[in-house]
Amino acid sequence: MSDERNGQSAGRLVARGRVPIGIVSGGGGLPFAVADAAARRERRAVLFALSGCADSERVASYPHHWIGLGQVNRLCRLARQENCEDLVFIGTVVRPTVRQLRLDFGAFALLPRLVAMFRGGDDHLLSGVAAFFEQRGFRVVGAQEVAPEILVPEGALGRFQPSKGNRSDIALGLSLLHAMGPFDVGQAVIVAEGRVLAVEAAEGTDEMLAQVAELRRRGRIRSSGGVLVKAPKPGQDRRIDLPTIGPQTLAGAAHAGLAGIAVVAREVIMAEPERVTQVADRERIFIVGIRPDRIERDE
Amino acid sequence: MSDERNGQSAGRLVARGRVPIGIVSGGGGLPFAVADAAARRERRAVLFALSGCADSERVASYPHHWIGLGQVNRLCRLARQENCEDLVFIGTVVRPTVRQLRLDFGAFALLPRLVAMFRGGDDHLLSGVAAFFEQRGFRVVGAQEVAPEILVPEGALGRFQPSKGNRSDIALGLSLLHAMGPFDVGQAVIVAEGRVLAVEAAEGTDEMLAQVAELRRRGRIRSSGGVLVKAPKPGQDRRIDLPTIGPQTLAGAAHAGLAGIAVVAREVIMAEPERVTQVADRERIFIVGIRPDRIERDE
Repeated sequence: MSDERNGQSAGRLVARGRVPIGIVSGGGGLPFAVADAAARRERRAVLFALSGCADSERVASYPHHWIGLGQVNRLCRLARQENCEDLVFIGTVVRPTVRQLRLDFGAFALLPRLVAMFRGGDDHLLSGVAAFFEQRGFRVVGAQEVAPEILVPEGALGRFQPSKGNRSDIALGLSLLHAMGPFDVGQAVIVAEGRVLAVEAAEGTDEMLAQVAELRRRGRIRSSGGVLVKAPKPGQDRRIDLPTIGPQTLAGAAHAGLAGIAVVAREVIMAEPERVTQVADRERIFIVGIRPDRIERDE
Repeated sequence: MSDERNGQSAGRLVARGRVPIGIVSGGGGLPFAVADAAARRERRAVLFALSGCADSERVASYPHHWIGLGQVNRLCRLARQENCEDLVFIGTVVRPTVRQLRLDFGAFALLPRLVAMFRGGDDHLLSGVAAFFEQRGFRVVGAQEVAPEILVPEGALGRFQPSKGNRSDIALGLSLLHAMGPFDVGQAVIVAEGRVLAVEAAEGTDEMLAQVAELRRRGRIRSSGGVLVKAPKPGQDRRIDLPTIGPQTLAGAAHAGLAGIAVVAREVIMAEPERVTQVADRERIFIVGIRPDRIERDE
């Protein structure tokens, strides 16, 4: 993205670079990573920090407004005031209590979609949220468009590399995720020694990892090692729902006795990449960004 | 099967009817259901009851021998003594301790396969077990061939019927199971209001149901109702690994707040059908045997 001032679309990009980006910010470090990436590109970022979710200490160092999860009209009004034509939705959202929601009039129609959007829900709901804000004149952009550095790059991130057996499990996992694509199921599976140990659905990645750890503890899974394979769903709206991994995912994989984690390179977001790499090296597991076309060629 | 004494193959069937059937019996009521079904067809059944698994009180009323799970040579010798050319493997097996195994010489090669066979494992392992006994001159037959009455019939078993919405979830679940067929994953999924809540892999059906119950308790699943859909895997060796449901499955489905259970008619075994129907009626959930070709026509 260092070519923002070069090339055919330079005029448009420079103009857009002067337009502030609105970052609707949930919990975790990703909203700040996106804001910092925008700053590196000389683009002003304004955080619309979600009360009860965003880290208030860190929010204070950025231009920001606090909003309730239910304050959709307020968000639209503030974003217009700040000349934010583009909105990014990023960060985790804990299921709020009704009191925390502070619903405004616009929120009633959108509320279930908003909650689903932040928690990883149904593709149709997510597209609905994007459409809602686009009808109100905003452009919903993926965090990775503003900050491509938050995506997992190709190759191993830490000291450890997948073995030949791991690569075979990764290929199997990718094929299974691909086959399940039309069904809007989860974005992750766990494969060990050619057997599928777990398929993510409503429980989410962390719980799936915890369950495999528990089955292993009880001797219900005889194989050792294994790989967590994570990929976006084929039809997914990549602006607002790319899969994410972070230090917690690594810790969960280690606890489940896995050999490593493989994600589709440049299509999965990574929170706190330095800590991810640290935890991976300490736990002696690999974390690798793969290109599905390349891994299949190895078979 | 009342035509055993009629039709083209009458001679062979009568002859086979006089040859005792060996029932390698794990826990639960299914071994006795199969033995009773054989008796109704005037065929002698000998139980090879697995120590620590089979119900000793009920075993006592049938011709039987006790064997350890590891006593494969002893099983072959006793089955030959009893003139059992055909062997059925049926019932549950709790993971044994090494002491309980009482390994004999023949068992060492087969042990991992034997354990997998009784616990619902990998298709290749299961076919390996069948091949092992067939190499020793036995025929491995499906319990359902001896006792077709243990299969779930077509239609609703209790008082409740699936709604139109339930039927749509059933069709979605069947399509997903079909798509996952080549991957040797689980045999069951849970679908509610068009969304896949859970996909069975190593954890098994009961744990999958428990997990959905827990996610609902914590408010992580917003939809209500839903259907457990169960089908054999496309490439599965149906002689020794048909999926099974029983009263525990019904109780688990009720605890998970499901509207009902749908299984492929005549391809899923049902333990204790009377109790299954009782529990279903008491919990106000449906249990239905479906024909995949018919449910898809309804769409």
